[in-house]
Amino acid sequence: MLKKPWGGRFKKDTHQIAERFSASVDFDRRLYKEDIQGSVAHVTMLAEKGIILKSEAEKITKGLKQIEKEIESGKFSFREEFEDIHLNIEKRLIEKIGAIGGKIHTARSRNDQIALDMRLYLRREINEITLLLKDIAGSLVGLAEKNIDTVMPLYTHLQRGQPVLLSHHLMGLYEMLKRDRERYIDCLERVNVMPLGAGAGAGTTFPIDREYVAKLLGFPKVTQNSIDTVSDRDFIVEFISVSANLMMHLSRVSEEFVLWSTKEFDFIDLGDEFTTGSSIMPQKRNPDMAELIRGKTGRVYGNLVAILTIMKGLPFSYNRDMQEDKEPMFDTADTVKSSLEVLSAMLKNITFKHENMEKALTEGFITATDIADYLTRKGMPFRKSHEVTGRIVGYAEEKGRELVKLHISEYKMFSRLFEKDLFGHITLEGSVGGRKSYGGTARRNVLRMIAQGKKETGKW
Amino acid sequence: MLKKPWGGRFKKDTHQIAERFSASVDFDRRLYKEDIQGSVAHVTMLAEKGIILKSEAEKITKGLKQIEKEIESGKFSFREEFEDIHLNIEKRLIEKIGAIGGKIHTARSRNDQIALDMRLYLRREINEITLLLKDIAGSLVGLAEKNIDTVMPLYTHLQRGQPVLLSHHLMGLYEMLKRDRERYIDCLERVNVMPLGAGAGAGTTFPIDREYVAKLLGFPKVTQNSIDTVSDRDFIVEFISVSANLMMHLSRVSEEFVLWSTKEFDFIDLGDEFTTGSSIMPQKRNPDMAELIRGKTGRVYGNLVAILTIMKGLPFSYNRDMQEDKEPMFDTADTVKSSLEVLSAMLKNITFKHENMEKALTEGFITATDIADYLTRKGMPFRKSHEVTGRIVGYAEEKGRELVKLHISEYKMFSRLFEKDLFGHITLEGSVGGRKSYGGTARRNVLRMIAQGKKETGKW
Amino acid sequence: MLKKPWGGRFKKDTHQIAERFSASVDFDRRLYKEDIQGSVAHVTMLAEKGIILKSEAEKITKGLKQIEKEIESGKFSFREEFEDIHLNIEKRLIEKIGAIGGKIHTARSRNDQIALDMRLYLRREINEITLLLKDIAGSLVGLAEKNIDTVMPLYTHLQRGQPVLLSHHLMGLYEMLKRDRERYIDCLERVNVMPLGAGAGAGTTFPIDREYVAKLLGFPKVTQNSIDTVSDRDFIVEFISVSANLMMHLSRVSEEFVLWSTKEFDFIDLGDEFTTGSSIMPQKRNPDMAELIRGKTGRVYGNLVAILTIMKGLPFSYNRDMQEDKEPMFDTADTVKSSLEVLSAMLKNITFKHENMEKALTEGFITATDIADYLTRKGMPFRKSHEVTGRIVGYAEEKGRELVKLHISEYKMFSRLFEKDLFGHITLEGSVGGRKSYGGTARRNVLRMIAQGKKETGKW
Amino acid sequence: MLKKPWGGRFKKDTHQIAERFSASVDFDRRLYKEDIQGSVAHVTMLAEKGIILKSEAEKITKGLKQIEKEIESGKFSFREEFEDIHLNIEKRLIEKIGAIGGKIHTARSRNDQIALDMRLYLRREINEITLLLKDIAGSLVGLAEKNIDTVMPLYTHLQRGQPVLLSHHLMGLYEMLKRDRERYIDCLERVNVMPLGAGAGAGTTFPIDREYVAKLLGFPKVTQNSIDTVSDRDFIVEFISVSANLMMHLSRVSEEFVLWSTKEFDFIDLGDEFTTGSSIMPQKRNPDMAELIRGKTGRVYGNLVAILTIMKGLPFSYNRDMQEDKEPMFDTADTVKSSLEVLSAMLKNITFKHENMEKALTEGFITATDIADYLTRKGMPFRKSHEVTGRIVGYAEEKGRELVKLHISEYKMFSRLFEKDLFGHITLEGSVGGRKSYGGTARRNVLRMIAQGKKETGKW
Repeated sequence: MLKKPWGGRFKKDTHQIAERFSASVDFDRRLYKEDIQGSVAHVTMLAEKGIILKSEAEKITKGLKQIEKEIESGKFSFREEFEDIHLNIEKRLIEKIGAIGGKIHTARSRNDQIALDMRLYLRREINEITLLLKDIAGSLVGLAEKNIDTVMPLYTHLQRGQPVLLSHHLMGLYEMLKRDRERYIDCLERVNVMPLGAGAGAGTTFPIDREYVAKLLGFPKVTQNSIDTVSDRDFIVEFISVSANLMMHLSRVSEEFVLWSTKEFDFIDLGDEFTTGSSIMPQKRNPDMAELIRGKTGRVYGNLVAILTIMKGLPFSYNRDMQEDKEPMFDTADTVKSSLEVLSAMLKNITFKHENMEKALTEGFITATDIADYLTRKGMPFRKSHEVTGRIVGYAEEKGRELVKLHISEYKMFSRLFEKDLFGHITLEGSVGGRKSYGGTARRNVLRMIAQGKKETGKW
Repeated sequence: MLKKPWGGRFKKDTHQIAERFSASVDFDRRLYKEDIQGSVAHVTMLAEKGIILKSEAEKITKGLKQIEKEIESGKFSFREEFEDIHLNIEKRLIEKIGAIGGKIHTARSRNDQIALDMRLYLRREINEITLLLKDIAGSLVGLAEKNIDTVMPLYTHLQRGQPVLLSHHLMGLYEMLKRDRERYIDCLERVNVMPLGAGAGAGTTFPIDREYVAKLLGFPKVTQNSIDTVSDRDFIVEFISVSANLMMHLSRVSEEFVLWSTKEFDFIDLGDEFTTGSSIMPQKRNPDMAELIRGKTGRVYGNLVAILTIMKGLPFSYNRDMQEDKEPMFDTADTVKSSLEVLSAMLKNITFKHENMEKALTEGFITATDIADYLTRKGMPFRKSHEVTGRIVGYAEEKGRELVKLHISEYKMFSRLFEKDLFGHITLEGSVGGRKSYGGTARRNVLRMIAQGKKETGKW
Repeated sequence: MLKKPWGGRFKKDTHQIAERFSASVDFDRRLYKEDIQGSVAHVTMLAEKGIILKSEAEKITKGLKQIEKEIESGKFSFREEFEDIHLNIEKRLIEKIGAIGGKIHTARSRNDQIALDMRLYLRREINEITLLLKDIAGSLVGLAEKNIDTVMPLYTHLQRGQPVLLSHHLMGLYEMLKRDRERYIDCLERVNVMPLGAGAGAGTTFPIDREYVAKLLGFPKVTQNSIDTVSDRDFIVEFISVSANLMMHLSRVSEEFVLWSTKEFDFIDLGDEFTTGSSIMPQKRNPDMAELIRGKTGRVYGNLVAILTIMKGLPFSYNRDMQEDKEPMFDTADTVKSSLEVLSAMLKNITFKHENMEKALTEGFITATDIADYLTRKGMPFRKSHEVTGRIVGYAEEKGRELVKLHISEYKMFSRLFEKDLFGHITLEGSVGGRKSYGGTARRNVLRMIAQGKKETGKW
Repeated sequence: MLKKPWGGRFKKDTHQIAERFSASVDFDRRLYKEDIQGSVAHVTMLAEKGIILKSEAEKITKGLKQIEKEIESGKFSFREEFEDIHLNIEKRLIEKIGAIGGKIHTARSRNDQIALDMRLYLRREINEITLLLKDIAGSLVGLAEKNIDTVMPLYTHLQRGQPVLLSHHLMGLYEMLKRDRERYIDCLERVNVMPLGAGAGAGTTFPIDREYVAKLLGFPKVTQNSIDTVSDRDFIVEFISVSANLMMHLSRVSEEFVLWSTKEFDFIDLGDEFTTGSSIMPQKRNPDMAELIRGKTGRVYGNLVAILTIMKGLPFSYNRDMQEDKEPMFDTADTVKSSLEVLSAMLKNITFKHENMEKALTEGFITATDIADYLTRKGMPFRKSHEVTGRIVGYAEEKGRELVKLHISEYKMFSRLFEKDLFGHITLEGSVGGRKSYGGTARRNVLRMIAQGKKETGKW
């Protein structure tokens, strides 16, 4: 009988099927660095408080550092029968330095230990994600600046609506990602709290110093209630929620890249480096990266549902169901980071086809709103102006002419308020330039936003 | 042909099936108050900026207030053919005050108008939710204080683990809800931003003053980019995400209430007011309220998936799919509020059965950890202590005696480190009182947390 | 104190907040017809078996029919304090016919009664849905026949890939919906089982005849195990799962309709009846119906998550959480039916713009695969043919010429295998006509599928 | 520049980040067996139809078999730059047997190839799952037989309701799993259709014989429409839907096992082999396996949301998003199989604690329904009987006595209908034995169901 570290009371071995089913070392080994970092801080504190000897702490620390190297060099052999990363490391430690290694688990439970490991992990991941967001935000601002004067249609319902600056559109994406960043930062506040010392959930009888451990590990705060500490997985739920929102955003950007890559729109060129071919159709050039990002949205949504389902209806304190929290967490972090990386690289490679964007404005009566606004400024109630303009559009459509091509006399057939100055408002320049309301698409607004974007991201 | 307000260009009526399918007034009528509030602020600004006359603004405002009263007194007849709350009100306004009513939509689109309505709505709902959370948090602190000395088992894996104070458990729930509140407050930051002025997405050609509208409506900020403003539904996604997390928490509390109401646990009495009977089994007393809260978790999770799915892969700016955002938002707010209300009332009525809780501690070797800690303090490595204690438990189980009932000589059979002082540590009082680590279950810790809870919630 | 029908043992009224929170009559009143239908069958059987008198059964039946009329004429006043549709009807029955009305609940519990009501409801809804599917399938077959010769690009990755017949594309949609129908029919098998007689879960001590009730209500089978009968909500889960798959399909069709309605694709005209305008941009004509169907996918996905979450982790037999099953069920049926209705109407109104579809084939090297196939037929390994063709496409792209416009001598530069007969294969007709493999896009294949479609749907 | 197999037209290499992001070989390598099996059938058909030479087909087949061995012996080196399992194998084949290997992709695209691989994979997985279900169903029937006479409470709302046979409860689980099996079988119908020959979506110009390939691979049918064939992922959606329903069931069984393992219920013993200990609390014996199954429900729900999200709103035919379909499919199959395996093993090891179950019946007025039924049989309307019984229960509760312990004279205080024969109905035996309605808990009913269960599963 192979004794488990917890097996003192047990008379039979775990069934092999059960052992395989419940082992987590296959995936939680990814936390080895955090686990060792946490253990080193823990034993340092134990020694500081006289709970173990300084010499013991040193031996343990040294052993742990060696184990870290073994793992990183691929020499460590993870064993399913030791269940998880914690016991794999503890077992090896005892193997290396003897029974003293068993002191590492003094005043600690796996319940608070795993909470620590995951919080350390997520803290780092969130930091990496916000750096990627900074990089992309910088690219968007740069692209906006570079393409400051390109005009394109604003689409609503995927129908051409009004002319806007491409740079304005790009700064819209910037705003979207800025909110994602804010949410990650808010989330980090709740991730970045030190849980060790909660023990199995009741606290511990040893005179530990949790603040000291927090300080060693760079946590600004410690958790307040030991039961809640081992029960809580909000920090994962929130991380995945925030990530789901981000992926939703990326799916929208991707949708646009896919659309804009079609022959029909033909607004962008993603380059050979970011398109792939077909195994059968030799002429194809597919926007696979954008499609994949869009598709990967599904897995993060799925991860969110997974973690919410896992936690639903669990009574307080630790339940083994919670072991299932790790894979959605890892997969979310991996997916978000790789999606951002590939988007970042794409943005550095993208070309906007200005002429095609502008060509899309020449038909579709895209400045109709400006006509309605014109009439309204002349005193006609907007609802009436809208209706009159609707009839003008109907007339132009029938005649097969665009709005700028109608004669002033034709406009006058619909309202006496029209004067020749109308035409200054219904060119693309007039339309775009006129939208000077704060946040509107007028060039000077966009330039201001670009300047602000540079300033903001400088502080990210 | 019944002309739609947008129908200038159209030659045929909307198909009846399409009209019914696309009308939203059935559910968005709930936003009438916000819609009118927003319109009043909008026309006030229009007049202030000279875009319409002050007298016109006054007429419109008066008309809107009358409409508000009509709606509240049930005299307003909502019509599906006018699609939504906005056009229903506008139509009625024109009916009441003539064509001037049509000026209300100057420099505005339904795209930014609906964003405003929903942000006003959510701001109020979040405030109500945080007040309910305050009330419940207060009850928990009060219950903790009242039950300060009751001991119960800490369950992990739903197995009795260690003795803890019931008050400690209750303060754990408090911590959980505190995080929910923080997330709502963070969410409110992003909800509480003024969108009007984005128009259909490009801004407007009228010289509006968005900051002024924001001031009138009590918004601290305005949105920065008109395209993003009409594209964005993050504020709803985040609201539902935060609510899903809260409902997950409530499902856990409910699960415990259901468990604790069983004859088997019998830890609480919810009272006749919060239990119901069976249509067939006359003796039943069911914890329906707790079950329903637990069940309602499903609808909020579902709403979260709904909104995320709706937004997935939509190209930028407004798409009609986004009309589907309202029902999940309303349903989430309603569900959260009613669940909190019923929980709040239940907490005011609940009785904890102290004796039953304590009886649950008398068997199950619940202070075994304290024995292991004892040995560890005497110098035995924890892993070894754990193993030795495991064997002691096995011995006690075989003998059919609890740990406190074993003789010191029997303990000595397992380790020479045992002395008579052991027994001071393995009583319930010894065990609970010993867990003085910060956040642990010792009485003085819990009292400190209660004091802190009172202070904190005082500021909520 | 207002006694509940189950209140014999209770000493206090249900708390008002609890009453409001737990009442379901607001939504389960939709089941009034099924509830009465079930009760009539139940009392008929009770009388048949001598459990109640025939005269009593007649009185009850007559009372129930009157109540049905009261409800349908809007005269019935539903009361929240009677909780649900069952007790509202029973209370009214007793009011009308006296204490004898209380016999209706003999040998029955609300646990089996609600299961019956929902199964009756879903049976009818599924039948209606399959009829709508039949109608749409018929339209698709009709449209395919009418547009048999229109050629359009097959898109993969939204890039033009190969020429296909529009009719082939339409028959692809047909296949998709055929599978949905099959799944509904399979689901109906498991819905269409008679649950009454399970009582609260243990069966009943009365000598009832469940087969007889089944016969009266048109059920081919009765459930086998009383506990499972009241625990089971699979029939709802399956109904919503199948519906989620259908809505996913509709979202794909809708996406295409939205794309094809853009100025950029311009492949279809949905007509004024199925497009709507903008409140601000007078020229807009938006494919709102397609967008809404696509958006409504979210609510059915959400309903699926809701019901799965509700049922997760519930111990056996009835739990009150299960009351939350009804709204997702209703909403799913409503959403599916209205989406199919509007799609059905749209298909009757749609116009395909043949010339635009064909114009989309003139550029994009769309017959490149046929060149590779040509070489392969001449003996070159396909992988090599693909590569050679890739180079030819690159050459043509550089020269700015389409593949049919290259001279045979230019082809020969890339491979000696090319002969003049090549050109017969790389016209649109050649390419489409060549794909005679079963299920391929060749005209005769599609005609065969149309004929088969007519035959199949004739039997639906 | 490293040429991709599809790279003929490309001038630049795929960006390294894009390559890593889009490669699927990391996970689709799991399909190597199916991929080779499909390719062998494909080339066999190509040779049969004279599209390639028999000798070529033989060479290719031999090469593929060798590659299969290389993979199985771990000698095959999968390369990310060859993207997926298909191209990895094709590349290696060409390496081994020269350019002829390139003929393997004649008349085929990766679009139909991957559909084939996944259908082959799922067919096998579904078969394995149904075998596991058969095994578990057999165990349940066996356990029911073995425990035929044990009485336990039927819980509704987790409150004791009526006495039932444990064997009846177990046969309820059996019914539940029987439905799961039916759904898998229905799903298999739609999985088990041969897609090859659809090419990229338009069919192929080669004179292939799809029926022959189907025959070689054991498919009863071929797909009907080439576009739909490459667009369709219903078979995965349905597989995961059906699995989500199954996991929901397993979560319910697990919840009961967790409850029944508590000290409070103490109804079962799972054995040391299927419980685990605590790293800190030496006395713990946790029902981890049941908790993990319950938790794993989350990942299958998540996978369902993932696949539904991925497919939402995709226009027809293949889009790269669909590459994301594989991991949820694999993970679902793995999760379902391992959960069933561990449940199967647990059922072989479980012990029911009969005395504890029966003890749970001695209090709680569990036969109250039988009193109400008694009165009803004597002519009192059920609603009245229920009320009277409610009052009796209240009386007994106050007196602190169980129902069987009240004297007949006390019963008579509540109704003159009571006679001494009452007591025959309100013992456990009387109550259980009385429920002879079809599907009810009476012994003879359960025995009949056991016999039927044996017969049914014999044919599975």
